[in-house]
Amino acid sequence: MLEPLPQILFEPLVRAALAEDLGRLGDLTGNATIPPDRRWRAVLRTRKAGVAAGLEIAALAFRLLDPTGTITLHKADGAALQPSDILAEINGNARALLAAERTALNFLCHLSGIATATQSMVQAVSGTTTRICDSRKTTPGLRALEKYAVRCGGGVNHRFGLDDAVLIKDNHIAVAGGIVPVLAQVQDQLGHLVKIEIEVDRLEQVRELLALWDVGTVKRYGADISNASHIPRPASLVHSVLLDNMPLPDMAEAVQLIAGRWTTVASGNVTLERAAAIAAIGVDLIASGAITHSAPALDIGLDDL
Amino acid sequence: MLEPLPQILFEPLVRAALAEDLGRLGDLTGNATIPPDRRWRAVLRTRKAGVAAGLEIAALAFRLLDPTGTITLHKADGAALQPSDILAEINGNARALLAAERTALNFLCHLSGIATATQSMVQAVSGTTTRICDSRKTTPGLRALEKYAVRCGGGVNHRFGLDDAVLIKDNHIAVAGGIVPVLAQVQDQLGHLVKIEIEVDRLEQVRELLALWDVGTVKRYGADISNASHIPRPASLVHSVLLDNMPLPDMAEAVQLIAGRWTTVASGNVTLERAAAIAAIGVDLIASGAITHSAPALDIGLDDL
Amino acid sequence: MLEPLPQILFEPLVRAALAEDLGRLGDLTGNATIPPDRRWRAVLRTRKAGVAAGLEIAALAFRLLDPTGTITLHKADGAALQPSDILAEINGNARALLAAERTALNFLCHLSGIATATQSMVQAVSGTTTRICDSRKTTPGLRALEKYAVRCGGGVNHRFGLDDAVLIKDNHIAVAGGIVPVLAQVQDQLGHLVKIEIEVDRLEQVRELLALWDVGTVKRYGADISNASHIPRPASLVHSVLLDNMPLPDMAEAVQLIAGRWTTVASGNVTLERAAAIAAIGVDLIASGAITHSAPALDIGLDDL
Amino acid sequence: MLEPLPQILFEPLVRAALAEDLGRLGDLTGNATIPPDRRWRAVLRTRKAGVAAGLEIAALAFRLLDPTGTITLHKADGAALQPSDILAEINGNARALLAAERTALNFLCHLSGIATATQSMVQAVSGTTTRICDSRKTTPGLRALEKYAVRCGGGVNHRFGLDDAVLIKDNHIAVAGGIVPVLAQVQDQLGHLVKIEIEVDRLEQVRELLALWDVGTVKRYGADISNASHIPRPASLVHSVLLDNMPLPDMAEAVQLIAGRWTTVASGNVTLERAAAIAAIGVDLIASGAITHSAPALDIGLDDL
Amino acid sequence: MLEPLPQILFEPLVRAALAEDLGRLGDLTGNATIPPDRRWRAVLRTRKAGVAAGLEIAALAFRLLDPTGTITLHKADGAALQPSDILAEINGNARALLAAERTALNFLCHLSGIATATQSMVQAVSGTTTRICDSRKTTPGLRALEKYAVRCGGGVNHRFGLDDAVLIKDNHIAVAGGIVPVLAQVQDQLGHLVKIEIEVDRLEQVRELLALWDVGTVKRYGADISNASHIPRPASLVHSVLLDNMPLPDMAEAVQLIAGRWTTVASGNVTLERAAAIAAIGVDLIASGAITHSAPALDIGLDDL
Amino acid sequence: MLEPLPQILFEPLVRAALAEDLGRLGDLTGNATIPPDRRWRAVLRTRKAGVAAGLEIAALAFRLLDPTGTITLHKADGAALQPSDILAEINGNARALLAAERTALNFLCHLSGIATATQSMVQAVSGTTTRICDSRKTTPGLRALEKYAVRCGGGVNHRFGLDDAVLIKDNHIAVAGGIVPVLAQVQDQLGHLVKIEIEVDRLEQVRELLALWDVGTVKRYGADISNASHIPRPASLVHSVLLDNMPLPDMAEAVQLIAGRWTTVASGNVTLERAAAIAAIGVDLIASGAITHSAPALDIGLDDL
Repeated sequence: MLEPLPQILFEPLVRAALAEDLGRLGDLTGNATIPPDRRWRAVLRTRKAGVAAGLEIAALAFRLLDPTGTITLHKADGAALQPSDILAEINGNARALLAAERTALNFLCHLSGIATATQSMVQAVSGTTTRICDSRKTTPGLRALEKYAVRCGGGVNHRFGLDDAVLIKDNHIAVAGGIVPVLAQVQDQLGHLVKIEIEVDRLEQVRELLALWDVGTVKRYGADISNASHIPRPASLVHSVLLDNMPLPDMAEAVQLIAGRWTTVASGNVTLERAAAIAAIGVDLIASGAITHSAPALDIGLDDL
Repeated sequence: MLEPLPQILFEPLVRAALAEDLGRLGDLTGNATIPPDRRWRAVLRTRKAGVAAGLEIAALAFRLLDPTGTITLHKADGAALQPSDILAEINGNARALLAAERTALNFLCHLSGIATATQSMVQAVSGTTTRICDSRKTTPGLRALEKYAVRCGGGVNHRFGLDDAVLIKDNHIAVAGGIVPVLAQVQDQLGHLVKIEIEVDRLEQVRELLALWDVGTVKRYGADISNASHIPRPASLVHSVLLDNMPLPDMAEAVQLIAGRWTTVASGNVTLERAAAIAAIGVDLIASGAITHSAPALDIGLDDL
Repeated sequence: MLEPLPQILFEPLVRAALAEDLGRLGDLTGNATIPPDRRWRAVLRTRKAGVAAGLEIAALAFRLLDPTGTITLHKADGAALQPSDILAEINGNARALLAAERTALNFLCHLSGIATATQSMVQAVSGTTTRICDSRKTTPGLRALEKYAVRCGGGVNHRFGLDDAVLIKDNHIAVAGGIVPVLAQVQDQLGHLVKIEIEVDRLEQVRELLALWDVGTVKRYGADISNASHIPRPASLVHSVLLDNMPLPDMAEAVQLIAGRWTTVASGNVTLERAAAIAAIGVDLIASGAITHSAPALDIGLDDL
Repeated sequence: MLEPLPQILFEPLVRAALAEDLGRLGDLTGNATIPPDRRWRAVLRTRKAGVAAGLEIAALAFRLLDPTGTITLHKADGAALQPSDILAEINGNARALLAAERTALNFLCHLSGIATATQSMVQAVSGTTTRICDSRKTTPGLRALEKYAVRCGGGVNHRFGLDDAVLIKDNHIAVAGGIVPVLAQVQDQLGHLVKIEIEVDRLEQVRELLALWDVGTVKRYGADISNASHIPRPASLVHSVLLDNMPLPDMAEAVQLIAGRWTTVASGNVTLERAAAIAAIGVDLIASGAITHSAPALDIGLDDL
Repeated sequence: MLEPLPQILFEPLVRAALAEDLGRLGDLTGNATIPPDRRWRAVLRTRKAGVAAGLEIAALAFRLLDPTGTITLHKADGAALQPSDILAEINGNARALLAAERTALNFLCHLSGIATATQSMVQAVSGTTTRICDSRKTTPGLRALEKYAVRCGGGVNHRFGLDDAVLIKDNHIAVAGGIVPVLAQVQDQLGHLVKIEIEVDRLEQVRELLALWDVGTVKRYGADISNASHIPRPASLVHSVLLDNMPLPDMAEAVQLIAGRWTTVASGNVTLERAAAIAAIGVDLIASGAITHSAPALDIGLDDL
Repeated sequence: MLEPLPQILFEPLVRAALAEDLGRLGDLTGNATIPPDRRWRAVLRTRKAGVAAGLEIAALAFRLLDPTGTITLHKADGAALQPSDILAEINGNARALLAAERTALNFLCHLSGIATATQSMVQAVSGTTTRICDSRKTTPGLRALEKYAVRCGGGVNHRFGLDDAVLIKDNHIAVAGGIVPVLAQVQDQLGHLVKIEIEVDRLEQVRELLALWDVGTVKRYGADISNASHIPRPASLVHSVLLDNMPLPDMAEAVQLIAGRWTTVASGNVTLERAAAIAAIGVDLIASGAITHSAPALDIGLDDL
């Protein structure tokens, strides 16, 4: 089930966005053409099909400019939307609602666009056990919201930042001089709740990793626990393997070789078409940057009722 | 010529984006795998063709984490890019550069994506006098940057917010009861440097406007100046007309009827294909929301040198 | 009619001002001398005649420190005030009201002072069609509020910043080498809703401008539209002319020469006395910096009821 | 000697003021008319006589937009200025300097106006031992700067906020039921470095205070120390007396009665003319709100060199 | 009696602390394990004896995440607490309460720890007239709250910052070359409500000070008032003397020598044991840094009801 | 090896702390007693033994007030310190250094205190494989810094917030109705890099967990992978077990039962004395709140050189 974002996390962003749009004196047009006490009823309505994300955020934009208005949500975040669906009904001061309209829609259309793009990819892999996850390729300042939108679309989240997990990438391996030395350098001062993922782009790197599994000594904070037969061996060091930009046959072989030892994540050149083929291979996750950085906005409008 | 954004306007956004990515303890991976004093040279390189936007912003991200590093730009914002073009060369502390990489790229790829989408539409109307402009459909918090990216792509900007021009839209006209009453209500307390644009979506509304031109009295802050034959008449009241979602033939007739009295702006359902047809009609501007809210990121990477 | 400022624009300023006054531990005096649950009734009362501005802002200061108190406004912003007029009645916790008093009054007296100075100048030109407008000579951080106060006083606003209109001043002309070259350099990348004003301080500059009108080709975004007889010619380029620091006879001749082609704005050395003489010449607007940067505060106090 | 404000205290205000003026895209005019690499030399020059305040603040505004420019101060804060005095010489990028000009001048003219008004009042009482001090009647957000400007003009500062001293005013006395009970209620939980001032507006209140001096027991944090003949008696409780809005003869009698027991501060209806008469009475300080809230800006301009 | 802190002063700190804990997506655990509409009742309960401080701050943390919940305080700040005392009863949404728990407790346990440490020292000197005060040795960002906690524990506050009183310390004396020159340099531009404290660490310095008392001329803002027999002499210059790190016998002699001329404050090496001995000497105040910088948190928990 | 915190993460805290101490006008004392151009050399010197943490943070405080001064560090964070060790040598403007002193020391002494307390506990368990880790019981606003200080002292970090790992505690188990149902509710929408820890306080709960290990089906994102013999079974669900407040014999039995299946963390009532006994049992980690919330400041001073 989808968990809402706490308002305390998005309210500052909504206030900043309203201030960005109101500028230095507010809505010139509404003030010049609409009587101050005029009431207005309107609905948020989709123009295209998609998935909702950001309804509470949009609602807050209206509420901040008209605390006395009422907003009734007809859909919840994560809901599948058809064209012309009514998402919410709004009733309040006409000037305030029109002044908040663009800010509310900018959040709602952007986040619903991400949820919709995510959902498309989720559907492309339906029938498999593969999950769709995101990346850190998000719009500066909006990562928490965009990753929430990914969850609305049925995806799961990869790292939130540089600090909540280790992801050893090609450049790290290059600098360290290979997989063995880079793993040797991973400090044991990492918190015990920090997971490690390693990116490989060639089959031989997968084999290097496997060699560590089969031969390696397992240490947890310095203690040799490799004698305990019931203990997962290098699992305490590496949790998952990111198969980056690999040809499909190689990726398939990699998944077979890994055989469940580590969670597998595929990334690179992930289109809707290719996603199904990748999922068929049996990777655990497919990571897509495009679902956040290149998702077109979902067309939603505010219509006079 | 393209004018740079003052750093004072984007530096707070870059600092916030770095903090968003560094989170509560910084780059776990770089710290765990790369020696602290290791130097690194890398280049920002395109993967696809497009238009550059945000190079100084990306450079600042690197500079904030490594003030001692050097960044040499090989391209400038607004430049046309081919795949594998080198945008910049970076030389500095390996950990700092890798920690700044994603933030720098998130700005650069997002803004270059907008510039690229704008440029495509500009090229679609090349050979005509029509300009491409943007809208207020921007990502919350990034409007100044995204509108800058539109300029990088050869476009011009529409309003920056609710406060720097009047744009009378369908809902305002509906509430006021028509074009004549809505214009009667536009207050003369507006600053003299504020322009007014009015949105119409039917030919009969264009005719209503024309009737005002031909018959109307011209007042400028209350003074009747309609006797002065050399003075543009209602031009002081309405500057431009937004032709919204009109069928092409109607739009063509509208432009002919208006005959240069007002600047004409076409909007609604603006695809690359349709843009050329609209421009052929002779509108002054085509406004597109998609160039900001739905532009896919331009693929640019940081490559080991 | 006067439009209120959205609370979202001034609430952060009121919170900051309260924090500035409360400092690091709050109101030592009230805490030391007034019982915690003591109620108090008081009124905001004028000591001198003037114009009200900032009542909602002052009310917010009280409300933020005592959300349970009540404030009844007896006057609205823009109202003419006589000495001893009651502006508002306040009822609430005595400590909270006394702690908020100075902050509330600092906003109210400052903004009402600006409204009053504006109104004096508006009255000095009454009976003419000339309007009074402000400048960018405002107190750092308070521009939106001070320009609102100008509107409360019956004035209109000039530019809000460097970004919402072009104002070509003496230094720009000097650097460019004259009026013709400076206008040639005004980029056509400006948004179509941006107006251009040019400052002149000698009659010969007015004649240079007129020569452009009579001879010049009119281009709008590159298209030659000067054949269309019904079209205002250079109006799309220059909207208004700022007559700066000109002797009255020269200014009169300038207005006659311009003959309504451009909006005229007089500035420089604008005293109450000289304003009437300038208005008699027939300029459209008189711009005054003094109404914002040198307006004495209006004396308003909080009186025990 | 005048002590400078630490830059860390005013830099955020200068950044905010620049952002307020640059708005959402920077200086349209400079960008449109001045070549990007054009250098410019200019001077800050007075138009009228006065006292300088805020030169480092103005200099920072220029420096923030052009870190490569140079600013040479010819005067220091607190200096007496004649018309046409050169305050500083500036050399840098033409666009940056023109973009920073208004922000720099808004600080400088406002603060120098306060210093000038202060200095006038200081001169009005010259030849006496009376000092001029300010009040909390300052522009919201700028109190630290305005009180610094008062020091530049030769004044001293009264309280900075509600938290750094106790000032018992009419309303506190009224609520407590008189001077004796209000002083009885002043808590002994006040820090030992907090001074107490009490406002009186009638001679009989002065006599009430004196009765406390002559009769009262002196307690310091509960200890009776009134036997120690060398100890100032109620001085540890009340430090100064604010004589508010008293007729001159009454004020004179009050000063004689007090005879140096407490520091005396005169306030209310303090004009330049009345200040000399008040000083002649022998009060220690005259407090003026007008030197901050009603000081006209000092006319200073940026002139092409 | 203890005065509450205005909410406007601590609300930003509580919001920042909640954001710090919620991070980029909120409470993973609560969201994953607790139904969204589940209600919960719990109590804040002490595990150890101590003094309460920060209850309203903790309550705000709960209220910000669940505005619909109810919090009933059973104790007030400053109250003496026994183990297992119930401080407050909380009723609201289970997820919200659990998400706010740690933030609320971090404030409450930290501030109650300071109040408790203060109270211990206050009790160590009970039966004397000596007060316990704090220092500027506080946690960065929390000074106002920690000094409030000191008041909750029965202490009084020393300076709040570098700007609300003068404290001349060893390094100032050293730089100036002794007590006489340092006092000569104290500017008379200080506000009249600013008190001066001087630190001495040897008996000879006390004698230097006394010499100034007996011989010195007393000037108040330049006026010689030493003839007025009823006026405290150097009291207008120095208010209190900080006896720093002196052996007990020396401190006793210092207090006798000073004989009430100045408020005396003992500091340095203040343990609970030594505090009683110092108080017996008769100093007015004992200043302790440890009550803020080294107070262990008071153990308080949130228990299921 | 210890990794430094990026300056971009702590600079805002240092600026805020300096502003908190400088207040509204800066350092009254230094300004009043020290010549403006006076240079000063001083050293940061320990008074007691401990571990350094926060040296770069303290150095920044000095640098922000005197960008021209020089600071030479003689020790690095994490270094063991003896009494009278010199940590750094500082050379700069005397006023600036004295104004920054308290802020610099407040950071340095607080963080070094935490590092020292951590180090004591680390030493108490030396000779074992047990690590010391922290908790979320940190000072509001300073979590990133305090957890860095824990690392300086040789500890590792537990969760940074509610969002970077799941920690199922007693209240979650109670609400869900037991360990089996609570684990059943842990959503599979969690990111694959999020680890789960579960708190138990009775042996029977450990046995419940073991039953899940031995019997349970292992699903990873829905796929049954329990047939793969080389795969750690419930390890993908639960990573570690927090043994909270258990008697030592029970804890010993728990560790034996768990036998390395999960990482074990002991918490509750962790004193230096008890830590050694707990470590002897063989837990992987001991979590202590006291090392952050109750660590006394380490005594470090700024001494004249």
